[in-house]
Amino acid sequence: MNIQEIIAKKRDKQELTKEEIEYFVQEYVQENVTDYQAAALIMAIYLNGMTKEETTNLTLSMANSGEVLDLSSIGKTVVDKHSTGGVGDKITIILMPIIASLGIPVAKMSGRGLGFTGGTIDKLESIPGYNTQMEMSKFIENVKKIGISIIGQTANLAPADKKLYALRDSISCVDNQALIASSVMSKKIAAGAEKIVLDVTVGSGAFMQTKEEAIEISKMMKNIGNLANRETVCVLTNMNEPVGKAVGNTLEIKEAIECLKGNIPEDIKQIILELGSQIIKLAGEGDNLEENKNKILENIKNKKAYRKFLELVENQNGDISYIENPEKFQKAKHIIPVYAEKTGYIEKLDARKIGVISVHLGAGRIKKEDGIEHSVGILLEKKIGGKVQKGEILAYIHANDEEKGKTAIEDIKTAYKIVENQVKEEKYILGII
Amino acid sequence: MNIQEIIAKKRDKQELTKEEIEYFVQEYVQENVTDYQAAALIMAIYLNGMTKEETTNLTLSMANSGEVLDLSSIGKTVVDKHSTGGVGDKITIILMPIIASLGIPVAKMSGRGLGFTGGTIDKLESIPGYNTQMEMSKFIENVKKIGISIIGQTANLAPADKKLYALRDSISCVDNQALIASSVMSKKIAAGAEKIVLDVTVGSGAFMQTKEEAIEISKMMKNIGNLANRETVCVLTNMNEPVGKAVGNTLEIKEAIECLKGNIPEDIKQIILELGSQIIKLAGEGDNLEENKNKILENIKNKKAYRKFLELVENQNGDISYIENPEKFQKAKHIIPVYAEKTGYIEKLDARKIGVISVHLGAGRIKKEDGIEHSVGILLEKKIGGKVQKGEILAYIHANDEEKGKTAIEDIKTAYKIVENQVKEEKYILGII
Repeated sequence: MNIQEIIAKKRDKQELTKEEIEYFVQEYVQENVTDYQAAALIMAIYLNGMTKEETTNLTLSMANSGEVLDLSSIGKTVVDKHSTGGVGDKITIILMPIIASLGIPVAKMSGRGLGFTGGTIDKLESIPGYNTQMEMSKFIENVKKIGISIIGQTANLAPADKKLYALRDSISCVDNQALIASSVMSKKIAAGAEKIVLDVTVGSGAFMQTKEEAIEISKMMKNIGNLANRETVCVLTNMNEPVGKAVGNTLEIKEAIECLKGNIPEDIKQIILELGSQIIKLAGEGDNLEENKNKILENIKNKKAYRKFLELVENQNGDISYIENPEKFQKAKHIIPVYAEKTGYIEKLDARKIGVISVHLGAGRIKKEDGIEHSVGILLEKKIGGKVQKGEILAYIHANDEEKGKTAIEDIKTAYKIVENQVKEEKYILGII
Repeated sequence: MNIQEIIAKKRDKQELTKEEIEYFVQEYVQENVTDYQAAALIMAIYLNGMTKEETTNLTLSMANSGEVLDLSSIGKTVVDKHSTGGVGDKITIILMPIIASLGIPVAKMSGRGLGFTGGTIDKLESIPGYNTQMEMSKFIENVKKIGISIIGQTANLAPADKKLYALRDSISCVDNQALIASSVMSKKIAAGAEKIVLDVTVGSGAFMQTKEEAIEISKMMKNIGNLANRETVCVLTNMNEPVGKAVGNTLEIKEAIECLKGNIPEDIKQIILELGSQIIKLAGEGDNLEENKNKILENIKNKKAYRKFLELVENQNGDISYIENPEKFQKAKHIIPVYAEKTGYIEKLDARKIGVISVHLGAGRIKKEDGIEHSVGILLEKKIGGKVQKGEILAYIHANDEEKGKTAIEDIKTAYKIVENQVKEEKYILGII
């Protein structure tokens, strides 16, 4: 077996065997297959596709390319949650403390933001002192001790996926269904969860632009999950506009705190109820989804979820005085309002554009190596379906660089589309697969 | 402009602009575009194709990526000759001294063998002392002095093509029409010839397997030549079986010497007459192709061509005693006959298989860095159309390693197909474009 033959097969639209895919992944991680050979194969896969079997084999090979976590010592079913990425997506930070507060263990590894999307780890690091890096033994110990830990992915988790993801980014091969599916599932499988709930985002701020694409990738991921013996449920959620009001790291943490205190925007509420009720079900803690939703609402109301979040932050060395008094968080130097130029209804609020503006303000990374500024971002005062008067505030820009802030004003105006006639509100949950 | 956008355009089947192609080639040579980005783009080009304009722009960008030779000081029209590659192809070594003996200047840069094909430079280096590397000023001086020089391509000749060719080889993207056409023409344009005659090989031992493919690539190359103001003629020749009897470096030099002395196998004869008459015509030394052919035959007969070859070898420090007495050439350690297992007619003699066997014997390179053994190879006693008796010798293996030699016996038998009924001889010239 050699890599040229494997590339040639995929180039000629032939199906690769399990052995060929394993060979590629192993030799790539060991640097016997070069980046340029991997790039050629990935482009051929992008253009010629993969079968279900190939996608599953790529996933399992990547999952097995490094450490595979064993969470069995936790003693209860661990359900992992993952989002395929979006703008303003702080769902993990709100939902996982709720789940833990219900006695269901949460052992969650999250990623950083790249491109126009944010990342849970960057957001959590807005909290002074919060430690996102630790040994696996310590991670598991934390879950056993307080029922929850949220950390960054370790370097040795699915290293093949890490290498391939960085490569795909630099060769314009990110937005491919089979590659996205195998990337997501390889990390989840390596992270040791027995069951998986996926938040599959759909719309301008997501990789999947249409519901059809989202259904297709959901079926792929479910299929991989089944073949890998990890029960998987996909919840399709709307990412045409950002989730909630805040976009940017500190701003999103502050919004998450508000949500845990019971002040939840409608879109966030629907998403956490839908995902949460599925997680509870998969964890074996209740088959009735409506009852599960009530449990979630109850633990927000009685502040158990909020207290669990405080416990999580404290246990990972975060300074909980910031959580208890969010005014302590450092603010951006310039807070600039964006005014509506006409009266009407918000028909569009382009999530991708908002994500890109946020990155340019400094909240995200264009390249992997870039640093980020936690305090900057955008607070959206108006969302799709909402009514607005000319001169009313659409959004606030939080910028450290005044020039960048000023540039963002016009950009944000173009992200909004205001029409005369009333617009119906967005549907936030688009399907369950 | 950035490389990711360029890759994404080609990935999405869009046409690249002249500026985008120039940007890619320049930045690749300057190592601002990485090998893996180039690999992804090349695979996308391989699968999604290029338009005529894109192919021409790629060619010119590669030609201009290094030194472009100026042969005007030679004072006469220089016609370059190039073969798209084959097995046993020693045409340059026979034909170019003939052309020079007719007073037409020959300034020829040739390549080395790679894969199953041989290379003129490797063959010439079988001659002890023959110098294939020199400064361009010395090369031109040689042509002015004796009318001919044949050397290896300099490192700075179309460096983008060199980098891309090596890359294509390692990512299974060699056999693509537009990429082959632009590679060939970029080198020819950079090498300074005003007019170009191309030997476009067709068959099992060539990149082009069918006449249709050969016609297509010939039209591409002619079109590039026209747009680059270099008149180009393509001669389609048969490469289903090897050219002549000898395959392997020293063996081919010995056959070339025999040919220059007038003992020419029919296929070689037809090919040199066709290519040669076109070269003479393009050089402005005679529009009548039949008369041109007679001039060639005349200069073989009167030994002027042979003496020009001696002059060439001597002028490049080669030891002409080997040419004058070919028995001096070092022979391989083992010369092993291969016997026919049945009586009949040769219907097939697979050129690619013979090329691969020759490489395994040590005559060629699998990787660019590999060394070669000049003395090894195969002498074909029977060719397509020929009659053979059971037990008669089909071919001789020249091997230095006895094991490899023995392995080659069965391999050579499978390269031959012997049938009961008479087979008509191959057509050697398939068309002129």
